[in-house]
Amino acid sequence: MPHIYNRRDLSFQLYEVLHAEQLCQAPRYQDHSKEVIEQLFDLAERMAEELFQPHAALVDEHEPVFKEGKVVINPEVKRALDAYNESGLTAASFDFEMGGMQLPYLVSQSMTFIFAAANVSTAAYPMLSVGVANLLSVYGNKEQQSKYLKPLIEGRFFGTMCLSETQAGSSLADIKTQAVLQQDGGFLLQGNKMWISGGEHDLSENIIHLVLAKIPGGQAGVKGISLFIVPKYLVNDDGSLGDRNDVVLAGLNHKMGYRGTVNTVLNFGENDGAKGFLVGEEGKGLNYMFHMMNEARIGVGMGATSLAYTGYLHALSYAKERRQGRYLSQKDPASPMIPIIEHSDVKRMLIQQKSYAEGGLALGLYCAQLVDLQRIAKQAGDADGLKQYTLLLDILTPIAKSWPSEYGLRANEQAIQVHGGYGYTRDYPVERFYRDNRLNHIHEGTKGIQGLDLLGRKVTQYEGASAKLLFTEIMHSVEQAKAIDDLSTYATALQKHLDLLMQTTQTMQQKIPSKGMSAYLANATLYLDAFGHVVVAWMWLNQAICATDRIQAVVNDDDRAFYQGKIKTCMYFMTYELPAIETTLALLSQSDTQCMDFDASGF
Amino acid sequence: MPHIYNRRDLSFQLYEVLHAEQLCQAPRYQDHSKEVIEQLFDLAERMAEELFQPHAALVDEHEPVFKEGKVVINPEVKRALDAYNESGLTAASFDFEMGGMQLPYLVSQSMTFIFAAANVSTAAYPMLSVGVANLLSVYGNKEQQSKYLKPLIEGRFFGTMCLSETQAGSSLADIKTQAVLQQDGGFLLQGNKMWISGGEHDLSENIIHLVLAKIPGGQAGVKGISLFIVPKYLVNDDGSLGDRNDVVLAGLNHKMGYRGTVNTVLNFGENDGAKGFLVGEEGKGLNYMFHMMNEARIGVGMGATSLAYTGYLHALSYAKERRQGRYLSQKDPASPMIPIIEHSDVKRMLIQQKSYAEGGLALGLYCAQLVDLQRIAKQAGDADGLKQYTLLLDILTPIAKSWPSEYGLRANEQAIQVHGGYGYTRDYPVERFYRDNRLNHIHEGTKGIQGLDLLGRKVTQYEGASAKLLFTEIMHSVEQAKAIDDLSTYATALQKHLDLLMQTTQTMQQKIPSKGMSAYLANATLYLDAFGHVVVAWMWLNQAICATDRIQAVVNDDDRAFYQGKIKTCMYFMTYELPAIETTLALLSQSDTQCMDFDASGF
Repeated sequence: MPHIYNRRDLSFQLYEVLHAEQLCQAPRYQDHSKEVIEQLFDLAERMAEELFQPHAALVDEHEPVFKEGKVVINPEVKRALDAYNESGLTAASFDFEMGGMQLPYLVSQSMTFIFAAANVSTAAYPMLSVGVANLLSVYGNKEQQSKYLKPLIEGRFFGTMCLSETQAGSSLADIKTQAVLQQDGGFLLQGNKMWISGGEHDLSENIIHLVLAKIPGGQAGVKGISLFIVPKYLVNDDGSLGDRNDVVLAGLNHKMGYRGTVNTVLNFGENDGAKGFLVGEEGKGLNYMFHMMNEARIGVGMGATSLAYTGYLHALSYAKERRQGRYLSQKDPASPMIPIIEHSDVKRMLIQQKSYAEGGLALGLYCAQLVDLQRIAKQAGDADGLKQYTLLLDILTPIAKSWPSEYGLRANEQAIQVHGGYGYTRDYPVERFYRDNRLNHIHEGTKGIQGLDLLGRKVTQYEGASAKLLFTEIMHSVEQAKAIDDLSTYATALQKHLDLLMQTTQTMQQKIPSKGMSAYLANATLYLDAFGHVVVAWMWLNQAICATDRIQAVVNDDDRAFYQGKIKTCMYFMTYELPAIETTLALLSQSDTQCMDFDASGF
Repeated sequence: MPHIYNRRDLSFQLYEVLHAEQLCQAPRYQDHSKEVIEQLFDLAERMAEELFQPHAALVDEHEPVFKEGKVVINPEVKRALDAYNESGLTAASFDFEMGGMQLPYLVSQSMTFIFAAANVSTAAYPMLSVGVANLLSVYGNKEQQSKYLKPLIEGRFFGTMCLSETQAGSSLADIKTQAVLQQDGGFLLQGNKMWISGGEHDLSENIIHLVLAKIPGGQAGVKGISLFIVPKYLVNDDGSLGDRNDVVLAGLNHKMGYRGTVNTVLNFGENDGAKGFLVGEEGKGLNYMFHMMNEARIGVGMGATSLAYTGYLHALSYAKERRQGRYLSQKDPASPMIPIIEHSDVKRMLIQQKSYAEGGLALGLYCAQLVDLQRIAKQAGDADGLKQYTLLLDILTPIAKSWPSEYGLRANEQAIQVHGGYGYTRDYPVERFYRDNRLNHIHEGTKGIQGLDLLGRKVTQYEGASAKLLFTEIMHSVEQAKAIDDLSTYATALQKHLDLLMQTTQTMQQKIPSKGMSAYLANATLYLDAFGHVVVAWMWLNQAICATDRIQAVVNDDDRAFYQGKIKTCMYFMTYELPAIETTLALLSQSDTQCMDFDASGF
């Protein structure tokens, strides 16, 4: 196998495009260097190949099962995760003072990208724990941090996010789980939670559930939601494990893909009540969750990119080896068949995948770097910088989540097509990637919700400050590329589409007073896709700018081919992909409401 | 469950749009009437609901297994197929003289649509037999017809098409299976065949394999390919079964979807040689196969439509029942949640599915009717009519195969999205439809091959006669719709895009002398999609023309809502879907070759 990722590309994107090593000049990251980072990638790559990828098909075929109230998971998963934790990788991006490695988030995201490409299901467990730990590191009190955060970072405890309930998926205001204050100042929780990834297993010593619940008598809706720590095993003051808490596995969800990650229904407090510990203030549960949402959503997008990326590499390898047919000009049926990569349509499918996979990676890495720049600015007391990076990250988050979910799935669809009938069988991994990737538009906020977030909140917030800043950043690249002969056409193409996007946004906003907010948001999902294409076109232009510069000094053929490939893929994206948004934007600028107005009796 | 199909829509499309009952005025179909047809639909509907749909999930979860050289298939499949055959449905479209019902192909395709929507995997078996019987009814000699055709039509024998080999999928010229002439005038076959659906099972008394093979000493390439009947059990002159032929099951292919249809690897003649009987003339095997290909490809498209259709109905039902969230204007969190169909984005996803599913059905039915018109014209000695219908069917076939495969899959993707997390679980059928539908771009000629067929052959054949005739037909509808107030805008929209398509086609052809044939065909797949959208827009305009007429005389609310739904969905397709082809056509008119020219070292 391998074909997990392309190290050359990751290096290009990190060091040549983003200058990741410069992050190590900031006090926060000064203990690290490019050498340290590269050693970590060596480690991650080896572990991904040796411990993660080999059981990826296995846990798909033999998903976790529910036996006598327990979850049985293939032992290969625990073996891989134990090794992962022993290497300290869960702790990668956490501060030294919390026991972390204090690595740039950009680096930990790159490693996550590698592990998810090797085995997205197994890689999901530490991702979940990191999310929980992240939240506790910001909002947990000292006691909570010492009891839960440290073992989470060490990988001894795993974590979950318990938001949804059967009757409340996207509509969190309607959760019913209750947390009742007890005499001793603690809470007892009662309720059922749905779609809980990693909700029960024996992979770790303990599981720390972060649970959204309502305290009786609180406000209605989202303002009545609080956040609680509900450990599977209670933790004593000395850190040792105490009694089993009243959290019971009610069942497993059986998914189309992502099967290796156990997904559960949990009952809290069906006996005595589940002991829960309030995080922060009452009624702020959803705020805390959303504060961490940016990173979680970038993580989902990165997972989608991982799947697109490994699918593309598998398809590429297959296309180079598989022989079928001849050139149109070759009429002699006795002549040898050619590798299918030589067929124009196959090549087009590969370029498309490359543009989606590497474009998605560029976007994920760019956003991860923004997280680092935020952290650096914060430490340096650079309020202006902090504001800028936050504005950018805010508006890019729904794109970083949804664009790779949409186009990564298309890439996986094409990876199957390149394989022909073989791609449709379970003997090749591409059908699995396709099934896995279908999840990403659903969890951590559906695609529809990302659209509403972008158009209804991010684009308008602070009088459009996020959008203005982003557009200014894109124009920087456009101006740079205009000065480069080979790229000026593509710079102009991006500028044209950016202008269209800006005009459309303005036109839509101007219609709010007359047409109303519902009409403005009616096609937010289409807006999201179009916006995403502009952003990824920008990512491709940045790569091409870098490649045209680098190619000047190239001395070996491999590097020349690599940079040429980047420039040509930028060209592909600008000519084959980006123009498709023109008709979408034309439609959006009318604030058309025919779908909203469609009478349901007409279905 | 049900949600298999919408009888109201099928009736609308058959009788109101296509006037199917008029087919019964032709001598060929004069024994039938609308009443007979309706009774058959009652029967098909009942069987689909009671015998096909109930085990669809079961055979997906427990696919056929290979045990001791045999294939074990869930007994529900045989039960359903026995009932199907007892009802005589396999014989539906065959001539009376062959023991068939001599029903319009339009009617048999409609029934196939219903059965495939209920259970595509089980419905595939009779579809395969019909394909084999079809071929033998045209090219088999008297003896072959009496030995094999009759039992195939009765459903006592099942059939397969054995084309592909491991090393030759799309490249049939490169098959290696050999057929060696024996002293007795018979042939012995040796070779391996891949991707054989229904290649081995105990569902029928016998299996009749139609096998492509090369006779040693024949021409190279496709002209050296002959077609052979290779029965699993030899058939004696009196019709009784004789010895087991040397056809051995080598293994099963394990697919992502369509799992209930057993897919096999077969070894022919690994012992004494498999006895085969030449069909027609030597070297014409591929011609014979391609002659039957139109119907097979329309059938694949219809299968894709079936999946899109049932997925849409499931999503629609879910969206009406599932409550989640509130209107944007409803700020009170204590107010009841609304059915998700009330959310604009959900409604858009449903309209999109409706436009794809019902548009695909319209296309499949239109093509099926052309087959009937061909047959009627042939019987009537109407050479001109026959030519016209054939020209249309020729150019529409790649569209009818690929458009529903492409957009039916999108519909199924959206059906999952409407269901949210539930749609991603195996508790709901929509993820299965999605997996099933992914096959349709691969079998019976990949999407890439359909594109080459359309642009390289069908568009140019007879000096563009097929294309000209089709465009004239579309313009008929456009002119009709222009005279209708409610539709004139959409008529103009279709005309505009049809013009664009015609201009683009011309521009591309004009560049052949300078740029070459490879450049002309480089983006044939993109051309196929764009062309398909114009054709389906036409199908929607025809439906809207009919609906605006019918709605005048409507007396009940259901009918009014139904017709309104048709008109609004036409509007949706013209405004949300069709314009997307503009940028594709602009790209195509440049005969751009960047994908073809992309240096493989740049990947």
